Amino acid sequence: MRLSRYFLPVLKETPAEAQIVSHRYMLRAGMIKQASAGIYTWLPLGFKVLKNIENIVHEEQARAGHIPMLMPTIQSAELWKESGRYDDYGQEMLRITDRHDRDMLYGPTNEEQITDVFRSNVSSYKDLPLTLYQVQWKFRDEIRPRFGVMRGREFFMKDGYNFDLTKEDALHAYNRHLVSYLRTYERMGLQAIPMRADGGPIGGDYTHEFLVLAETGESEVFYDSQITDLKFGDREIDYDNVEQCQAVLEEFTSRYARTDETHDEAIFNEVPEERRRSARGIEVGQIFYFGTKYSEAMGATVQGPDGAKVPVHMGSHGIGVSRLLGAIIEASHDDKGIIWPEGVTPFHCGIVNLKQGDAEADEACEAIYKSLTALGLEPLYDDRNERAGGKFATMDLIGLPWRITVGPRGLKNGVVELTSRRTGESEELPPEQAIARIAQIYGKASA
Amino acid sequence: MRLSRYFLPVLKETPAEAQIVSHRYMLRAGMIKQASAGIYTWLPLGFKVLKNIENIVHEEQARAGHIPMLMPTIQSAELWKESGRYDDYGQEMLRITDRHDRDMLYGPTNEEQITDVFRSNVSSYKDLPLTLYQVQWKFRDEIRPRFGVMRGREFFMKDGYNFDLTKEDALHAYNRHLVSYLRTYERMGLQAIPMRADGGPIGGDYTHEFLVLAETGESEVFYDSQITDLKFGDREIDYDNVEQCQAVLEEFTSRYARTDETHDEAIFNEVPEERRRSARGIEVGQIFYFGTKYSEAMGATVQGPDGAKVPVHMGSHGIGVSRLLGAIIEASHDDKGIIWPEGVTPFHCGIVNLKQGDAEADEACEAIYKSLTALGLEPLYDDRNERAGGKFATMDLIGLPWRITVGPRGLKNGVVELTSRRTGESEELPPEQAIARIAQIYGKASA
Repeated sequence: MRLSRYFLPVLKETPAEAQIVSHRYMLRAGMIKQASAGIYTWLPLGFKVLKNIENIVHEEQARAGHIPMLMPTIQSAELWKESGRYDDYGQEMLRITDRHDRDMLYGPTNEEQITDVFRSNVSSYKDLPLTLYQVQWKFRDEIRPRFGVMRGREFFMKDGYNFDLTKEDALHAYNRHLVSYLRTYERMGLQAIPMRADGGPIGGDYTHEFLVLAETGESEVFYDSQITDLKFGDREIDYDNVEQCQAVLEEFTSRYARTDETHDEAIFNEVPEERRRSARGIEVGQIFYFGTKYSEAMGATVQGPDGAKVPVHMGSHGIGVSRLLGAIIEASHDDKGIIWPEGVTPFHCGIVNLKQGDAEADEACEAIYKSLTALGLEPLYDDRNERAGGKFATMDLIGLPWRITVGPRGLKNGVVELTSRRTGESEELPPEQAIARIAQIYGKASA
Repeated sequence: MRLSRYFLPVLKETPAEAQIVSHRYMLRAGMIKQASAGIYTWLPLGFKVLKNIENIVHEEQARAGHIPMLMPTIQSAELWKESGRYDDYGQEMLRITDRHDRDMLYGPTNEEQITDVFRSNVSSYKDLPLTLYQVQWKFRDEIRPRFGVMRGREFFMKDGYNFDLTKEDALHAYNRHLVSYLRTYERMGLQAIPMRADGGPIGGDYTHEFLVLAETGESEVFYDSQITDLKFGDREIDYDNVEQCQAVLEEFTSRYARTDETHDEAIFNEVPEERRRSARGIEVGQIFYFGTKYSEAMGATVQGPDGAKVPVHMGSHGIGVSRLLGAIIEASHDDKGIIWPEGVTPFHCGIVNLKQGDAEADEACEAIYKSLTALGLEPLYDDRNERAGGKFATMDLIGLPWRITVGPRGLKNGVVELTSRRTGESEELPPEQAIARIAQIYGKASA
């Protein structure tokens, strides 16, 4: 993309209403614009990162064998009355009356809708196991929306639901989700620690939250420091293999790691003192096994192998997709701006032309732009007639992990500058080597 | 995808509520399930086609140089009061009151929101031309939603908005949209004819609707038969080239083609009688140039080259993404089910195993499945223990354009059967040749 043709309305001033760094940088970098309290327009740069995160979620769900679908945002109140949650949910549910005076609502979650889909279409254990999921907009009418996309009212979320014949099968689905979530967050450059959590209004005997450590986190968390050494890495997992998934669960959840909601001082004190940590954390996902709670209330049964009808065992599993943008920035920034991990960056590389209009510099930039594009990469080329200082400030603010700087002086010596946003380190090298380096970083075959 | 692991709840009976063929087949093929009146859950097969259509829209918008973003579904009423449309819009607007008693609404369209984004961020003609668009859910509280996704209440739509300094520039943006829409529809296997239309509540001096001819269309249309011979094809277009885009507009709109709203019998009668046609059409998109209507009402101005502030010239341009599924099926089906065009098909090819459990047949199917997958294609392998008749009926109903049938008898002679869903013609050939044929059809390099 050529910046002269893009829509990147960066702000010079820090907006007064933004209390945390991710909110400030998302506004300043032209990623979002508040439409009304807790509701945001995703400007092109923000939308691009949102899509990248959504795509990673889809890819990892596909790898785990889960099936994508999509439920509508507006639901009838009927199903919620059936499950008993219509009255329970309180004022966070956005309640709507349509033109025929029917009670509707903007879905804050979808256990009822998905259970209805299931009971209408599945009647035999032979169709199990089944895990369906969606990535869809949801609405919770927070009394005091704040922190930008971290606690918005309209938010984008992945929610998945497993249906199994037995508790054992459902716990395998639970483990499968834990594994796929570990992979998902790591691909986004995040360490998200599964912590024992509280069931809350969704209910559930087994539940873990995934927390990213960050000073601005809304939760206090307590953990054994050994847990931050764990890495899923690029190990191969057979998601159908019960033992393999169980082993990952045990590896990642056997050490103490709890939020303040479930924290138990006595158990925590059994951890050797030098490994005890307390910190702040941002919740970016949660998994639940809740058994037959909804299937019994809503009659979601299947005929088992013995012919008897039994309610299915269910769980639900969520990833806060829009919230993740905030979490990633909270975990990865400096005083100049955002530092995107390579896995989610909106553009793979910035190209800064130090002297727009200089024939040689323009030509070199165009050539680099075309080479990167031909490799399947998306560079952002700052081709505006601006001073170098302003171009650097914009690139630093929007946080592309790599920048190629091109100027007449370097070109005279046959070199451009390749700079890492994270370390700030620069290296002079011939354009084709800079391109090859970028290609290698992103796993693209260089020409 | 292996069908035994997919969620494809096909129905044997034709649902009574479905009056038109696309609605019937979408329900029967397990693509959608009604959640409430005019609101649908997109089951996995339906969701897959919806995504394919959305992707084509994104690709063609990118080609035209338009910038994607995303606006929220829930809007504040304030902007609509500013533009004067809050009272005008009537009962089709889903009006909502939040917990703080603020007037909100579920966006039926987004001229106000996008104009607000523009006026908050753009102040100079140097940032023009600019075209922003989104593909987002919208809601219109239709009094009698019907025909499935063709006239639903919650629907998925691409809406784009151009901002230009002059009327001439804005008309070029109009032409650019016309060109990109022609390409978009053709890639979906549709002939969508641009017809002179009526501005309606969005307003506009220049507007064309795109109509797909189909017996069940809601509009009566009148056209010169020469128009159906026009094809955009694979011609190269430079979207920045004013003359090229203008020439396409002239080529595709100079012949008589109007909906009943703008039909003029006198002008129509100038068309030679043997070329005069009347038929039914389904609207799948519309483009508008409406000048400074919203920019004046909402103060969206830029400083021109002479320093004076001028309101920008705007247009808006929509494609009915979810509605397109219905339109494609109306235009492409037979009495056995849907016939997907290759451009949007949910799976590239079906594989039917005539004798599941037969070692040789199972092995051959697996090998074909893996070869197609390795080529970057997505086959749907019916690996269920069902009779051949049932498998064929399902494949015909869901409409995959190609089917490879594998059975012990054929394998003895070293052949499988390749069948075109459209023509019904079958051909026996060795598995590797069938794979090569499928690869060639979808433009994939065969191994």
